[in-house]
Parts: sequence; structure tokens; C-alpha cells
Amino acid sequence: MTKVAVFGAGSWGTAFSLVLADAGNEVTIWGRRPEVAAAINERHENTEYFPGIELPAGVRATTDPAEAARGAEFAVLSVPSQTLRENLTHWVDVLPDDVVLISLMKGVELGTTKRMSEVIAEVTGIGPDRIAVVSGPNLAREIALREPAASVVACTEEKVAHRVQELCHTPSFRPYRSTDVLGCELGGAYKNVIAVCVGMAVGLGFGDNTTASLITRGLAETARLAQRLGADPLTLMGLAGLGDLVATCSSPLSRNRTFGEKLGQGMTTEEIVASTRQVAEGAKSCASIYDLAAAHGVDAPVAEHVDAVVRGEISAREMMYAFIARDTKHEKD
Amino acid sequence: MTKVAVFGAGSWGTAFSLVLADAGNEVTIWGRRPEVAAAINERHENTEYFPGIELPAGVRATTDPAEAARGAEFAVLSVPSQTLRENLTHWVDVLPDDVVLISLMKGVELGTTKRMSEVIAEVTGIGPDRIAVVSGPNLAREIALREPAASVVACTEEKVAHRVQELCHTPSFRPYRSTDVLGCELGGAYKNVIAVCVGMAVGLGFGDNTTASLITRGLAETARLAQRLGADPLTLMGLAGLGDLVATCSSPLSRNRTFGEKLGQGMTTEEIVASTRQVAEGAKSCASIYDLAAAHGVDAPVAEHVDAVVRGEISAREMMYAFIARDTKHEKD
Repeated sequence: MTKVAVFGAGSWGTAFSLVLADAGNEVTIWGRRPEVAAAINERHENTEYFPGIELPAGVRATTDPAEAARGAEFAVLSVPSQTLRENLTHWVDVLPDDVVLISLMKGVELGTTKRMSEVIAEVTGIGPDRIAVVSGPNLAREIALREPAASVVACTEEKVAHRVQELCHTPSFRPYRSTDVLGCELGGAYKNVIAVCVGMAVGLGFGDNTTASLITRGLAETARLAQRLGADPLTLMGLAGLGDLVATCSSPLSRNRTFGEKLGQGMTTEEIVASTRQVAEGAKSCASIYDLAAAHGVDAPVAEHVDAVVRGEISAREMMYAFIARDTKHEKD
Repeated sequence: MTKVAVFGAGSWGTAFSLVLADAGNEVTIWGRRPEVAAAINERHENTEYFPGIELPAGVRATTDPAEAARGAEFAVLSVPSQTLRENLTHWVDVLPDDVVLISLMKGVELGTTKRMSEVIAEVTGIGPDRIAVVSGPNLAREIALREPAASVVACTEEKVAHRVQELCHTPSFRPYRSTDVLGCELGGAYKNVIAVCVGMAVGLGFGDNTTASLITRGLAETARLAQRLGADPLTLMGLAGLGDLVATCSSPLSRNRTFGEKLGQGMTTEEIVASTRQVAEGAKSCASIYDLAAAHGVDAPVAEHVDAVVRGEISAREMMYAFIARDTKHEKD
């Protein structure tokens, strides 16, 4: 019985805990709120995110990071990306020696433009050979319902990727291996920004031709930056790039797409945050991704335009028309 | 005033005629049925496909191919792909010298495994430098409503691609140029097959994670065959590949997706044809695309499995589980 700690009781952390338990592991979720941990322990249910879905007996929860981490061979990190650094400083001392860290997070840190695995390495001092990421078309609710899904497990050390792959392989969850951590992380972070952009188009009343064009251009932009940074552009054409992007943009449940829809309908970022009490990952990552692209001399019109709308510098309508009118005569220019 | 003949009064032929007229051309549609031609001439409306949408004054229709072709600088071909060869034999003698042919068709001929531009070249004797294709995320209804859309105009002779690009450029329709005719045509034909496959998953009740995975694997399969045949794999990542695929798979109006949904719900091909009086392009092209892939030693599981379901050899449910269970450990294998 392998022990796994999962830091974060949000929707993806909870769904992935269910996968891990289905695969035969003993899972302890760390959650900030006592009532969420209590519901998981007493009712086998995350009442906040998945009311009505029974979690396997192998899933327990605690509000004590030391208890979650005790004896864990693997520690999964699944908190909002802009809170990772602060959170990790509280957890670093309780992590067992030789633990393998698994990031489920999709974002780029504001200010530093670092990817999540880079923040993890910096704060914990753990080398990239013990830091893996999981990314793919994995809408959490469908995973929790055990609908079949595929994903990518990436680690620069293929042996570790293989261990994580075996850790989370179930009849309904099929992980593939990769060593391209950079490509997987960029794909995951960028897709949130593109989903905000697609949401804007939907909110403005545009149809499937427009959203398909935005997805196409957004993925090309992602691949361009990824390649410049040293990733394999083919990763972006796979499950952690195209797959994740299409799933997120197709789902009316996606928080990023929904955030964009509200922008498209004319709400401001402040109004959306006031009404939903949360900012979608893509609305935060657009600025750091744009900074990252600019620092490497890569053109990133989707990130740039989404950032301008999120900041309130231009309206979603102005942005969309500016974007559509962008003059490019040969497709590959 | 440039004269353009459009052979085919179906949804895409009609919508593209509207684009051509918006761009300032004089368009004559050839249609098989007198009542459709009469409605276009008398009421400026294709009552069959776009009731309520007024066609521009620059669009007229006839049932006489010679009348449609007279004085035309460009002839657009937009008929069901398996009828192209037979149709063309009736039209070849009325085509003006030096006419440029533009294919809107997306399919691979059964038996010969030839793409539409190859069939055109073979029947007319016209060289590839005067045969262009238009392909992209272009759901016809949205185009007819003048929602903004982008597309790719491809011809091996870039100057001709440029002429066609100018011919159909309007404020709402933005054509990009390419010289990769092969890549564009394969992307267009394959996406119909993938849309049938996605439809099956939808009909079986699978969610967005599954459909996104199928889209990802389908596009990788397309790119693999395209590259083997000499196309640029990047074409498949652009509007005529990914873009067209995502638009088709997103739209509940897509005939190919709908055909797949009915297969997924347990109907047989015969039952669907009996109730709708048509076979979706993808349900026909899957066999010829699979033959084409097999002839070039390329693995094509999506085309192969869709073909088996369309033929009734296995059920959609068996197919989907066989497909999901397919063992691949490293994503790029």
C-alpha cells in the first residue's frame, strides 16, 4: 500500500485523490477548511465540490500538513498557482526525504514568470528528477464520475514518470509518459488563457467558426513559445496541449471559459470577482505568460489581448475585432 | 466584375456564393433541382438550406451547366465527393479555357483513394497550377450569417492561391494562403471521419475529456498520414486541420457528428440512411482513407474503427472501449 499525500481539497485535487485510491493507494488529503476535511472523513464526500459522489474508503483528509505528509512516498500539489510559493514554505519541513512531488497546477507565477515545477524546485530544493507533472484533458467532474480519460505524466527522469504512471493508472484513467515537463506545463497554463479568450467570443455571441479559429491560433502561439523555451512542439499537439485545450474550451463548466464569457457580456474583472469571489487561473496567468513571452522575444497576441481586457484597458468587443482584423496573409506568418 | 460559376447549390456552395458576391463578383450557381434555382432567382433565397437568409443580388442560379460556366474565370466545385467524377464528365466540355477550378469538397474517392483535386485533374486534364482548394473552420450556416471566419486557400501555384484569396476576401471572411493542397485536403477529409467518431462518443454518453482525447488522437493520425504522403504536418495544426476539426466536432449541427451520434445510440448505418436519406461524408470517406493509409503502411486506428462500425462489423460501444483500451505507454508511440 503506497502512501500518497494530496495537498489541496479543490475539485482536481479531490478527483485525482479518487483516481489514486482507485489505483490501490492510501491517500490523505490536506485541506485548509476543517468542515471539508470532516465531510471527507465522516461522509466520504467532498460536499463543496462533488456533492453526491462517494469517495473511496482509501481517501482520508486532515487540516494538518504533517499528518498528511507522514510516510508519504508521493506528495501531490494542487493549490491555486499564485498561492503555491507561500503554501509550500509551510509544508517543506514536513515532506519526507525522497518524496516525489507531483504538480497538478496550471499556471505561471506572477512577477517571476516561473512555472509551477520551477517554484517547487526553488522552494523545496528538490531536483527536477523528483518533480513530476500531470496534465491532460481532465475535467475534474468527469474524472470523479469515472468517465474514461487519458492524461500525460511528465518528469525529466523517465523512471520517475513511470512510477507516477503506475501510481495513477486505473481502468478509467490512462496516463501516458513524457519527459517534456516544460511543454506540458506551458500547455496547461496557456490553455487557461485561451479558454478565457474563447469565453469572450462566446459571450459576444460568436459561433463555432470563430472559437475554432481562436483555439487554432492560441495553440500555435503556445507551441511557438514552448519551442523557443526548449520544449518539444509535438507535446503541444498531444493530450497535454491540444487535448486539454479542447476539453476546457468545450466545457460550459470551465471556470476560465465562464470568466471570459462574463467579460464578453460586458462585465469588468472587478464585477466578476465580486459576484463569484474567485479569479480564473487564466485571468491571472495571462500577464505572467505575456511577460514570459516578451522576455524571450516571442509574439503572444492572445495572452497580450486577454491581459488588456482583464485589466480593463480595452473592452472584449474591441479586443475581438482587433484580433480578427490582425493582418496575416500567409497562414504561417 | 469577375464571373464565377459555382457547381452545387448545397449549404456550403450557397454560403460560399454569398461570400463571393459580397466580395464583388458575379456568381451563377448551378443546381440540379429547378425549384431550388427558381427560389434563388425569384426570391434570393436557398429555401432548402438557408430559409430566411437573403442572398445578395450578385447571386443567380441555373440548372444548365453551360449557362453557369459561360464567361467564368473561376469555377467552384461543391458537390458530394463521391459524385464528383460522374458530375465532372458532364461539365468538362462547358468549362472556359484558362478557368481556375476551386474545390470546396472534403473527401477521398472510394476505390481510387484519390483526393478531390486529383479527381479534378484526372477528369479535366487541367494542371494542379489551376486547381485550388478552400478549407477551414467554415460551418456554412455561420458563414451565411456573415459571422467572422477564417479559411485557407491552397494551390501549388502561389500566384493562383493569391488570386483566389482576393476573390473571396470580405470583411467577415478572411482567407489565408497556402501551397499545401495535399495537407488541406487530407485535413478536410479526415476531419469528417473523426467527427463521426466524436459523435459516437457523444451518442454513447461520454463527456468532454473523451471527445477531446479523440480529437487529439485523430489529428495526430491525420498528421502522420499527411506527412507520409508529403504534406507539411504544420498544415494540420492550422485552420484547415485543427481549426476545421474543432469547429465540426463542436457543432451539434454537423452532419458527420450527428451521424456518429446515431451510431452511438445504437442505430445501424441502414437505419440512419433510411431516416435521413443521406450518408455523412465521413461515413463514406472512412473506408477510402483507411485504404489510403494501409497502402502507405500508416497505422490509422480512427479510420479503421469508424469504418468497422459504419459497416456494422462491431458496435459503436465495442469500438469505443477497444479504442480506449488500446495500449500505448509513451504518448508518442
